Amino acid sequence: MSFYDQLKFNQDGLIPAIIQEQSSGRVLMMAWMNRAAIEKTVASRKTHFWSRSRQKFWIKGETSGHTQTVKDISFDCDGDTLLIQVEQIGAACHEGYHSCFFRSVDESGTDHQVTEPRLATPEQIYKNK
Amino acid sequence: MSFYDQLKFNQDGLIPAIIQEQSSGRVLMMAWMNRAAIEKTVASRKTHFWSRSRQKFWIKGETSGHTQTVKDISFDCDGDTLLIQVEQIGAACHEGYHSCFFRSVDESGTDHQVTEPRLATPEQIYKNK
Repeated sequence: MSFYDQLKFNQDGLIPAIIQEQSSGRVLMMAWMNRAAIEKTVASRKTHFWSRSRQKFWIKGETSGHTQTVKDISFDCDGDTLLIQVEQIGAACHEGYHSCFFRSVDESGTDHQVTEPRLATPEQIYKNK
Repeated sequence: MSFYDQLKFNQDGLIPAIIQEQSSGRVLMMAWMNRAAIEKTVASRKTHFWSRSRQKFWIKGETSGHTQTVKDISFDCDGDTLLIQVEQIGAACHEGYHSCFFRSVDESGTDHQVTEPRLATPEQIYKNK
């Protein structure tokens, strides 16, 4: 059975894709793919997503140069989530952090704190683009 | 500003929560939380989710005993995804695998293969429950 036949897309034809850095195990980001974005990702080995707000495809790093080379694509028991192992060039987060998950809930349980250094400002990331 | 004020819930009042095993870095599963499920998770240090199909709360491991103790709760730059670090007791997947992501796309790019051993059958996991 085809891999694609195992997947359950939502009512908008989308499936969430968790992006994990293979070398470090860090979860870098989560974004959405439709079937065509998965096919482009499989074929090119670069992550392609579907922007729900802009209603168009986007390639991670197309503006910043911070691309993701795909090392493995797995999917869960329900077929409704993808987990993609990548090699990340530069910062994954458009705010200049290595991972988009750079803030954690603090001990109070209601407030939060930043948990990693900022590698660059958004202006630095996009200055030549 | 409260942690909760940073979060963007979808039109159903839900936010996806990626569950990662802190000790191994393995991504175990993804499930959905509403605000009350997050509050229960923060207060009890056990993962609570909202079942979209059953329209009720569920606690990971409430039937199987395979609970998840929360070690860290982070959220992404857009505030629309949670990443929760846990200590996992037993298998996270109801199909008896350590992680729900036990299948990967193979070299053909269209078929898939199982990538980890099955630790137990569903019957074994739920036999006394």
